[in-house]
Parts: sequence; C-alpha cells; structure tokens
Amino acid sequence: MGKKIVVIGGVACGPKAACRAKRLEPSAEVLILEKGSEISYGACGLPFYLEGEVEDLKELTATPVGVVRDPKFFKAVKGVDVLLNTEATAIDRERRIVVARNTQDGSEQTFPYDRLVIATGSSPVRPPIPGIDREGIFCLKTLQDGKRIKDALQNGKGKSAVIVGAGLIGMECLEPLLKAGFKVHLVEKLPYVLPALIDEEMAAHLMKHIESKGVVLHCGQGVTEFQGDTRVTKVITEKEEIDADLVLLAIGFKPNTELARDAGLETGPMGIKVDAYMRTSDPDIYAGGDCVESYNIVTGKPIYAPLGSTANKHGRIIGNNLAGWQSRFPGVTGTGICNVMGLNVARTGLTEREARLEGIHTVTSLCPGPDKPHYMKGAKLIHLKLVAERYSGRLLGVQIVGPGEALSRVDTVAAILKSGGSVDDCFETDMAYAPPYTNAIDNLIVAANVIQNKMDGVIRSYSPVEVKEKLDRGEDFIFLDVRTPKEFEQMRLPYENVIHLPLGMVRQKALELPKEKEIICLCKVSLRGYEAAKILEGEGFPREKIRLLDGGLLGWPYEKVVA
Amino acid sequence: MGKKIVVIGGVACGPKAACRAKRLEPSAEVLILEKGSEISYGACGLPFYLEGEVEDLKELTATPVGVVRDPKFFKAVKGVDVLLNTEATAIDRERRIVVARNTQDGSEQTFPYDRLVIATGSSPVRPPIPGIDREGIFCLKTLQDGKRIKDALQNGKGKSAVIVGAGLIGMECLEPLLKAGFKVHLVEKLPYVLPALIDEEMAAHLMKHIESKGVVLHCGQGVTEFQGDTRVTKVITEKEEIDADLVLLAIGFKPNTELARDAGLETGPMGIKVDAYMRTSDPDIYAGGDCVESYNIVTGKPIYAPLGSTANKHGRIIGNNLAGWQSRFPGVTGTGICNVMGLNVARTGLTEREARLEGIHTVTSLCPGPDKPHYMKGAKLIHLKLVAERYSGRLLGVQIVGPGEALSRVDTVAAILKSGGSVDDCFETDMAYAPPYTNAIDNLIVAANVIQNKMDGVIRSYSPVEVKEKLDRGEDFIFLDVRTPKEFEQMRLPYENVIHLPLGMVRQKALELPKEKEIICLCKVSLRGYEAAKILEGEGFPREKIRLLDGGLLGWPYEKVVA
Repeated sequence: MGKKIVVIGGVACGPKAACRAKRLEPSAEVLILEKGSEISYGACGLPFYLEGEVEDLKELTATPVGVVRDPKFFKAVKGVDVLLNTEATAIDRERRIVVARNTQDGSEQTFPYDRLVIATGSSPVRPPIPGIDREGIFCLKTLQDGKRIKDALQNGKGKSAVIVGAGLIGMECLEPLLKAGFKVHLVEKLPYVLPALIDEEMAAHLMKHIESKGVVLHCGQGVTEFQGDTRVTKVITEKEEIDADLVLLAIGFKPNTELARDAGLETGPMGIKVDAYMRTSDPDIYAGGDCVESYNIVTGKPIYAPLGSTANKHGRIIGNNLAGWQSRFPGVTGTGICNVMGLNVARTGLTEREARLEGIHTVTSLCPGPDKPHYMKGAKLIHLKLVAERYSGRLLGVQIVGPGEALSRVDTVAAILKSGGSVDDCFETDMAYAPPYTNAIDNLIVAANVIQNKMDGVIRSYSPVEVKEKLDRGEDFIFLDVRTPKEFEQMRLPYENVIHLPLGMVRQKALELPKEKEIICLCKVSLRGYEAAKILEGEGFPREKIRLLDGGLLGWPYEKVVA
Repeated sequence: MGKKIVVIGGVACGPKAACRAKRLEPSAEVLILEKGSEISYGACGLPFYLEGEVEDLKELTATPVGVVRDPKFFKAVKGVDVLLNTEATAIDRERRIVVARNTQDGSEQTFPYDRLVIATGSSPVRPPIPGIDREGIFCLKTLQDGKRIKDALQNGKGKSAVIVGAGLIGMECLEPLLKAGFKVHLVEKLPYVLPALIDEEMAAHLMKHIESKGVVLHCGQGVTEFQGDTRVTKVITEKEEIDADLVLLAIGFKPNTELARDAGLETGPMGIKVDAYMRTSDPDIYAGGDCVESYNIVTGKPIYAPLGSTANKHGRIIGNNLAGWQSRFPGVTGTGICNVMGLNVARTGLTEREARLEGIHTVTSLCPGPDKPHYMKGAKLIHLKLVAERYSGRLLGVQIVGPGEALSRVDTVAAILKSGGSVDDCFETDMAYAPPYTNAIDNLIVAANVIQNKMDGVIRSYSPVEVKEKLDRGEDFIFLDVRTPKEFEQMRLPYENVIHLPLGMVRQKALELPKEKEIICLCKVSLRGYEAAKILEGEGFPREKIRLLDGGLLGWPYEKVVA
C-alpha cells in the first residue's frame, strides 16, 4: 500500500501538487476533495470571458487540446481520484482524518491521510456594509459568478454599473461593462486607482485614461450603504449617491484559513503560515496557493500575494516534498500586470510608497518615453518608474503604465530582484535590442542611468509629487522649460513662474536667469532638462539651486495647458 | 584650460562618450571627428526605412522631438565640437596627436589630445569573390546605402533579388524586398538560417515560415562568383546559378581596427582589445562600440557582438572614465532579437551548439506552446529552447522562435545569465502573469521544469535531432503518440513505427505494448507524452527503455503527414 495523500482544493495548487506527487511516487494514493462542481479551471480568465476574448466558459476548464479536466480525466490520465461537491469541514490531526460533507446531499464522510495538502484558495472580501446582500451585487471569483455576471451584461444598455474597488479585478472589468453599454462608475476608498500596485503619480496617468474612455471615478470615498428594495438601486458613498443597476464588488480577496485554523494550524491575516518547504506548523500538512502567506524576497517579510502563477509553483514544490524530496520555494517579488482598456499596467518589487512604509530610504527615477525608437511608426508611450535603495543602489521595484510594451521590462526587473541586484545590474543586463521591439538605450536602462546619476550626485531632482507640494506651499522658484517653441505652444505648465528658453539658447542666455532663485529644469521627458541643468552648473549657477523635474512634462500628472 | 578629449567616430558610442564626458567635466574640450557627413544616426533603423515603417531617412538623424543632430546642435546643446567629413588617418601616441584628412578637399589636419576615444565602428564583410564590385550589389550599413537600396526597390516588380547571408540584416531585409515585388532568394553558406543566433531545429521552423512567404532558400552553399557585364545578372553558388537583378551582401560586419592597429594598439580579429574600463593597451586611449572585442559573461571569453545597445553602454562607461571615474563594464550575454516577416526570433547566452563547441555538457528543453492561455483568442505559438549546464543547472541560454511573444522571455533569461543564475532561478523568478500577456505556468517556467526533471532523473528524453539520427540509422524503436484520435488524424509522424494510443487509454492498454523495445512517447508538445512515460514507468516498463520526444509533434521540425 502506498502513501495516502489527501488534497483539499481542486483549482490550481491542489491539482498541481496531487499530480506531481503521483508522477514522482506512482505507488501513492492521491485524492482531491473539491467543494465546487468544477476542477482545475482558469479562474483568471473570467474577466476576459465577460469581455468576449474567451468565447465559452468551457474553455476555462479544458486543456489546451480541448479535453475537459473532469474526475474521469484525472483518474485515467493522472491516476488521481477526485471528489467534486465535497467540502472538507474539519481536519482531525491526531487521527489523521479529513471530515468532509457532500454539498449536494449533506452526507458526511471521512478520509484518512498520511500527508495532507490544504489548497483552499481565497474568497472575495465582503465587508459588512448595509445592503451588501441585495440582488444585483456580484463578486467575480467562480465560474458561476462569471456566468451570472455575463447574463446580467446582456441588458446593459443605458444602465448604470458601479465597480467597488479599483484593484486588479475591478480594473479588468471596466472594459466588459463599458462594452455592454453600461455607464460605469468606479468607487475606490483610497485616493487613486490600483493603490496596491502603483504609486500615485503613475496612477494619475491611468486615471486620465479611463476617464477619457467614459468611466466616472469616485476615488477617496468608501461605500457606506447599498440601497434598494430587494435589488440594489443606489450605492451610497461617504460623499455621493450613485445610481446602480449592477454592482461589482472587487475589494480584494482574503485567504480561506478557517479549516486550517480550526485544526490548530498556525495562521494569520495573510494566510496559513508555511515555511519554505510549504509545510504548515504540522510537518505532515502542506499548504499552498491563495490560502497561504507568501514571503516577499525584497523585504524579507510576509506578504499576501494570491496569483495563479505562484499557486502553480507552490503545487510543484509541494508535490516534490510529498514524494520525499526536499524542495524549497524562496518567495515572490510581488509582480503584477493588467491591461486596463488598452493601457498596460505592470509592477514588481516595491513602489516608492511601500518602500517608504518599510522605512527604506529610496531613490527613484521617472522616465516617460516611447517603447521603441521614435522613428518607428508603431512606437508607443510608456511611463516607467524605477525605485532603488538610496545608499546601496539595490533595486527595489519598477512600475510601468502606458500603451507601450511593459511586460519585458517588468520581468527583467523581477529577475534582477530575485538575485538581489542593483541599478548597475539593471544597466548591465544585456536586454534584447532591435528597432521593432525596443530602444538602443532602453527605457529601463535610462531609468537605471538616472538613478546612477542621482546617486553619483550628477543629477538633483524633484518628483512631480514634490514639485506639486512646493507649488501648493506657494514657494518661490522658477520652472525652466527648454523645449522648442512649437512644443511649448502645444502644451505647457499653467503656472506663472515658467520661463521658456529652448535648450539651444540656454548656454548663451544663461546669465539672464536669476541666480538666487531655485530653478527646476524640464522638457518633454527631462533628458533635455538634464542637459540644461548641467549647462547652468557649468555656467556657475549654485548647484544646490538647480533641479530637474523627474519625468518632465510627459510625466507630469497634474494640470497642463494644451493648445 | 581643460583636458583635451578627441573622439574618433560619431555614430553611437563616440557621441555618447563625448557628451557624457562633457557633462561630467564641463571644463573639458571635447571634439568628435566623423569621416561621414552625418552624426549620431540610427543605423539600426535602415531595414525599417526600406520596409516603410520609417517614413523618412531624416528621422534616423533626428532626436525624438524632431531636432536634427548636426554639429550646430552638438555645439549649442552639448558643448561638444564636431567635425564632419574628417577621417582620422593616424594616431601619433608619442606626440598625442590624431592626424586626420578632410574627405572633401583632401587637406590634412592634426588634433592634439590628452585622452582619445576610438569608436570607428564596423564595416560590412566583403570577401574577395569574383565580381563582387559589380553594379547592383549592395551592402546595408550607412544612410547612403539605405538611400541607394531604397531607390533600387522602386522597380522591383518581377525582378530577382539575392540576399547573400542569412544573418540579422539579411533576415530583416527579406520583407522589404518581397514588398517591393522582387522574387527573393536567400543564400547561406551554412546549412540553416541565422546560424550565429539559433540552433538547427529552431531555425527549421523559421525556414518553413519564410519559404511559405515565397522566399527561395539556398542553404549550405557559398557564393563563388557574381556574373554580369558591369551590372550583376547572376549569382553563382557552389551548387546553383541564380538570376539576380539586385544583390544584398549581408555576410556580417568586421570591426574597423586598422587605425588602432597601425598605432600599435593591441587588436585581434574580433576587434580592438579593451579591458573592463574600455581602455586599450594605451591607458590614455579608450575604445568602444562595434570596433572592440566584447567579453561574453557566460563563457568568460572574448566575443564579437556589435550592437547599438552595447555601443551606447560603452559610450557611457568611457565618458565616466574620461572624467576620471573608475567605471567598469562587465560584458554581454550575446542577446539578439529580430522580426522575420512576422516571426519573432530571439536568443541570449549560448545555443546548444555553441555550448558544445565550448566543451560544456548541456541539458536542454524544447517547449512549443501558446504565449498566453490557450483560451485567449490572441494566443500565438512560440517555440522555446532552454540550454543549461548538465551538472550544475547553471543557465546557459535561451532561444525563441514564433509568432508569439519572445521579448520578455529572452530579457528575463538575459537578466538571470547576468547574475550567473540557474534553472532554479528561472523557475523561481516572479514573472508577470495575467491572461492577456502570459501563462499561469509560463513557457519559460515549463522549460525550466523540464530541465529540472531531466536533471532529477524524472524525464529521459531525446531531442528531435537525436531522434532523426536514430531514424536515419534505421534503429528499431516505437513512437507512442498519445494524442486524441482527432489530433492524430489531422497531423502525425510519417513513420511505420508509430503506435497511436490516446493518453486516457495508456494506463489500461499499457501491457499490450512491447516491453523489450525502446518507446519514445510524444503528444502535441510532449506534456501528455510525459504523463504517458510516467504511466509506463509506473506499470513496470524498464525505465531505460522509456523516452520522451522533446517538444512533441509541434516542435518536430522534420516531415509530418498533414490531413
């Protein structure tokens, strides 16, 4: 008789762990208990099913060659038993038994185990807001959720939809709701969208974009009530009342830890506690996927990072260890990517805000620019923000927002973060270059160079946020805009303290500028602004008075005058 | 008086070094000598000018905001002097003087220096083939070359063009020539295309693709003569005669080292020798860009890797050192990418062939698959080949060919190679995941897992090349194709020793298979083939007789029967 392995949960980590263990140890008896009626489905595809990119919900449960992953498939192909509609209700660790309930007939059954895997996943956060159980209020987590919302989209024309929460799911669902004809409102408690993913000035570009597509933003206000008789008709926030025919609750997910906690396993608000071997506090019980606390390689601290990619990695590691290997998983770097109505938004590591909350002294660069050479017709803008440790130059993270290519830059930084690399490693990485793809001096290289320059004392700059604060405080300084007259005419900062002096004339007219005032140089992206700053320094202006505006006018997320 | 810095060469590395030095040390007098009539242009954009993606040649010499980079611009903005049409003919190291000739009036001038930078670039390889100087034979290197070829494209309809050399430039020029109406022939001395970039079985996919677009391939044959009166009319190879109205010589580039060599500096066939500080054998003379020998981080050996991205990095490092810093450049990993008529081709590190030539024992994986979840309409195929050291698992390189996304995967590996990482690092890198972009288990993760499995002894496999050799030797073995009947009907291997047994039936029918013969399991991509192999092992088949076909039917680059 082989080892008895019971796996609780059949979406990503569970089946992966089960099948891997069975492959490595064919004599093992492996059983998966899944409370739902589907196994091993691509839940991440749900927003794209709503939007139409995925045609049929069935494709989310099929293998790439169209075979549906059902219990019969698992038995025949994987040699793994699967019980659907079977919800584990208790773990008796002393007797090594899982108690489970059939969700259809309510009958109870027990399953003995030698090794147990908990992969119970996560649930949508549903805060106790009055009226939250009204009809017409949806979450998006299961295939059933997907089907229900898809049905509700049929009659969207002229109606009002409110998405509560501007996280990944909320942002991904903007497009399907708009496409269905809804007037779409997005309510977010924090002052900007995707606050867990990107910094405020990066989010500002995204907010402009979705507003231009017709989304009505309601940031900085929490929901206090859902009104309506049986059906929701209004969403009440701390500041407004919004008509609502449909509400999508997308406040986030929380790990399903009850079963583990009730069994006396160590858990926390970010999930079941596991070590690098994905072992819980009971060495015969493993856990992985959305129900566990992850480890952030960058901070060395726990993080909650539920993601299909990580869940699958957990599954492989658990499978190895079930078979008696000693496999470790080092953690994640908090990478995330999403497409928001044609805009790519990606990040890995820490944002500036997150780094500061950790007490880390940061140095950042803000680099807007085309994703490939400007002379290529297909070039598209990306805003790239790189964050590093101020003293060591160790890379902390990157954020990218824009219609241009983001994936390769974020993955490159993820790989560097994994090895604990610095901005020097970023500069030195031999990234692929050819005009149809990237720049000879890639945006990421530029960003690394800017940070190197700041660390070396070659550049002194302010971020847009810092400059905005100076403006708000009414400080006395000068903006020196060194773009061409044509560029200046088309778009400029709307402030009285702007002096326009094309870069080609800075050298000769430098002495006409006041030496006693602080001068903040800028151009479109601040590369020419940088040249101007160096010219002024060369002309004897006091270095401490000369600054650069990070990201230039293109990176400026606040008011601009546009011709 | 500041330090006198003379820079020879004004395309990429030279201007970058000059401007960087001037910014860091404003008192320096910086002079660029350029033999041509343009400075700082984007030569890499030339194929895309021919193809029409770049509309005007002028865009290649302009800054992103349309300012033309001419000597006036350099003087006004950068504070750097530029002399065009000024060819350095000798370096007198004792007197620290550069001798230069005006290419227009032939006059000679001398320029004293304290520090010198050699950035003389590269020249197209022009072997002494009879007739190579006939009219109608072009190289593509300078803006003038670009203009001349563009003119020649005007009357392409019904004519015959021969590209000699299937390297990067040759492959990038297929599309513009076809678009112009030419019948296009591609002649390559080696047996397959892009031999310096990818392995044979990866090139096979690319060759099929370009043949399907109408390109006539002539691989494994060198050119012996160009025939014609004054104008070329025929290209004679070792095996064929090809009509030719236009010939594009694209055999490669060689470093321009004569000036350095004549001045007694150390040079070699791969360029001027420099140390990590980009210093030549004379510590007052730096060199960078296409004229120097690079250093390959993966092999620890010299490499010739001329690329605009590297040249710019060299320029920055040289600029730093000119200003008295101590900046090092660690070398490259040999990354390259190109778009060949809609197919992405990318590589970094070493190919399997290159690694073997270095005497390194390799382990590889061959993973064809969609670049994002199969359920997304936009998913496209990529073939990914990962190469690692057999014993340590240290990553050696990756190659990608296909219509799907290649850039992010190649950059990720480039970053891992930079840090000397292993296939474990590859698996553990927190690559971005969301269905519009990538797979939950990314192609690169799958490839790393396959190599881990091979190293762990979980998978034993043959590459397509090895299996083809077994077939050619007439060895007695069985192919076990475990795909669905429908898939098998649509496409299969054309050999008599193929047994078809859908995966779902392998467990029950295993005992009908012969135990004494070697069985090579396969499916579409060999993931199900892997399951089948594990099932057979579980059923007691001798492990040494069970193998997997790397890459499955999709990765099989040889004959197939298609319904």
